Amino acid sequence: MALQFELLASDGAARRGRLTLAHGTVETPVFMAVGTQATVKGLTVDQLESIGTQVVLGNTYHLALRPGDGLIAEMGGLHRFMNWKRPILTDSGGYQVFSLAANLKIDDRAAVFRSHIDGNLLELTPEKAVQIQENLGSDIAMCLDECPPHDAEPQVMRQAVERTIRWAERCKQAHRRPDQALFAIVQGGLDVELRAECAAQLKAFDFPGYALGGFSVGETATQMAAALGPAAAELPTHKPRYLMGVGRPEDLIVAVGRGIDMFDCVMPTRHGRNAMALTADGTLKLRNAVFKRDSAPLESDCPCPTCRNYSRAYLHHLFLAQEMLGPTLLSLHNVAYYNRLMAQARGAIEQGRYGAFSAACLARWGATT
Amino acid sequence: MALQFELLASDGAARRGRLTLAHGTVETPVFMAVGTQATVKGLTVDQLESIGTQVVLGNTYHLALRPGDGLIAEMGGLHRFMNWKRPILTDSGGYQVFSLAANLKIDDRAAVFRSHIDGNLLELTPEKAVQIQENLGSDIAMCLDECPPHDAEPQVMRQAVERTIRWAERCKQAHRRPDQALFAIVQGGLDVELRAECAAQLKAFDFPGYALGGFSVGETATQMAAALGPAAAELPTHKPRYLMGVGRPEDLIVAVGRGIDMFDCVMPTRHGRNAMALTADGTLKLRNAVFKRDSAPLESDCPCPTCRNYSRAYLHHLFLAQEMLGPTLLSLHNVAYYNRLMAQARGAIEQGRYGAFSAACLARWGATT
Repeated sequence: MALQFELLASDGAARRGRLTLAHGTVETPVFMAVGTQATVKGLTVDQLESIGTQVVLGNTYHLALRPGDGLIAEMGGLHRFMNWKRPILTDSGGYQVFSLAANLKIDDRAAVFRSHIDGNLLELTPEKAVQIQENLGSDIAMCLDECPPHDAEPQVMRQAVERTIRWAERCKQAHRRPDQALFAIVQGGLDVELRAECAAQLKAFDFPGYALGGFSVGETATQMAAALGPAAAELPTHKPRYLMGVGRPEDLIVAVGRGIDMFDCVMPTRHGRNAMALTADGTLKLRNAVFKRDSAPLESDCPCPTCRNYSRAYLHHLFLAQEMLGPTLLSLHNVAYYNRLMAQARGAIEQGRYGAFSAACLARWGATT
Repeated sequence: MALQFELLASDGAARRGRLTLAHGTVETPVFMAVGTQATVKGLTVDQLESIGTQVVLGNTYHLALRPGDGLIAEMGGLHRFMNWKRPILTDSGGYQVFSLAANLKIDDRAAVFRSHIDGNLLELTPEKAVQIQENLGSDIAMCLDECPPHDAEPQVMRQAVERTIRWAERCKQAHRRPDQALFAIVQGGLDVELRAECAAQLKAFDFPGYALGGFSVGETATQMAAALGPAAAELPTHKPRYLMGVGRPEDLIVAVGRGIDMFDCVMPTRHGRNAMALTADGTLKLRNAVFKRDSAPLESDCPCPTCRNYSRAYLHHLFLAQEMLGPTLLSLHNVAYYNRLMAQARGAIEQGRYGAFSAACLARWGATT
């Protein structure tokens, strides 16, 4: 059994769950740190563990191109290669093919494209996407999907949904690893009926988990929030639900309220490298001269190693001096911030006060749902 | 008492000592990791502690320019600012003024120069160098010295030595902090007699420790090795001896054999950032394709976190993918390598086999003394 999912509590549409995978247990809702190239940028696995990171996400497209999934398999799989002992989720590579690759040609058989690294001609098929992820040995693999822009013509969107469904079936047939769970991805953009249709057909294949793809691809937060509830409601209750590539703290808080269990986003590490710290009171730009003599930590009540040990003045200095430790310490805090936000959300759901918790978060951030 | 030094054992000229400073005890011979801008590049203090780093060196010139020693004093001193709880040594800034600053003009009163960061006109006097280091709050401060090129004309070299002695006296008179030890620096280049004269005059001031400056500034290893023994022999036996800015592993092994107790060098972290790993069998260039499928650690018997947890293939991948974790993991190993080399040297001295240990090291590296 590659995956077990228990629903421990619910509060409105929000769910408190526990996911058991080949490499351990995951408390949901959960934020997964993005480790695109077999490393969460700037952080060691010890640092990730010290702040309660439960799952790391690896990017199939990047890893297949460099160093290659065959090499990673030779080295004992992605867990051993990058020394991460807890669960790993890999995406299918589809999203990166659409966003990074050059000269993309796509038909039912395959997506054919040129590598963004060396220009080599490559192709990704549903079967290949599964094989790569089996080589990587992730706990959760994703079906190859087609992800059109959110404002694609209805006919293009419908074609992508139909292809996504056919590809999901082929992925399921190709999938072999008994210690890996394969999730399907629901597409359909902002069209609630099309998403419902996609979900209904994918549910017939009885995947162990379902993702919503095609969000956070240019639509507004309001559009996303409106489409998210109906889309989540079409997914099976007793299976985990993953909202791919989303997003900002306010997006996570809204989406948990709509019944989402799993998230990933590059924002905490990317912001960390760009000297931006996420805090309960908003984003701090650490290069700003206002922090030059600020002896306070980023957040006074944050238990992360950065906040326990360093002042804003020190972080300001590191960024001005272009020292690597700046991005590292700030990424550490930002991932810890996401982890802590999800822990707070879990507590609020358990105690039946998620609505109030969510409203307080959004009000403090000045965010609208 | 800012400093105590016990000689625990000796073996020929090599010495095994114990230095007690305001922030703890240091076993010598010791390698001090260079933390120029209040951070050892790429490494957290937890990582430095985990590999047995005993002392970190801060650069007075860099810290005085940015973020400023006054600001660091406001923030509770350099230890607290950078969260390093063990001893810190700061240099005087003199060497960086000579090597980095622009438009240098030097006379007995002061070194006047332009900042390499913003071009501001600044000056460093012996009194100012002491004041800055008192603001930083290091355990060991260094006197301001003049460091001419190793091939300077005899008259220039003599003038520098005389100024270094006058400045040392002024530093001693200016120095106030009872929890900080002030070391003098012996100059004189490769001129053994001039060094002896400089040492004799500085000894009269009864500093708690002495450094040899002006080595590793362009002379050959053979020239350095020849001048080092006589220079070290002129220093007081019962006080610590620090060879500034030296150097390669083979230089340390030779210098310990000549009676040196303390070292610092940027080589382990600089090599780490440049994908070069130091090992008992020589330097590995991790970008080399030969490591693509190499599942071995950098060194099979190295207890550092990098060697315990990662393969050469993974490190190769990180450098090819330009991931920050590559420089971090390799710097960690390289500093651990220096720390371990000094631990082995201490053991060899204790057991009266330093000559054999030294010869074996140098033979393995193909180095000549």
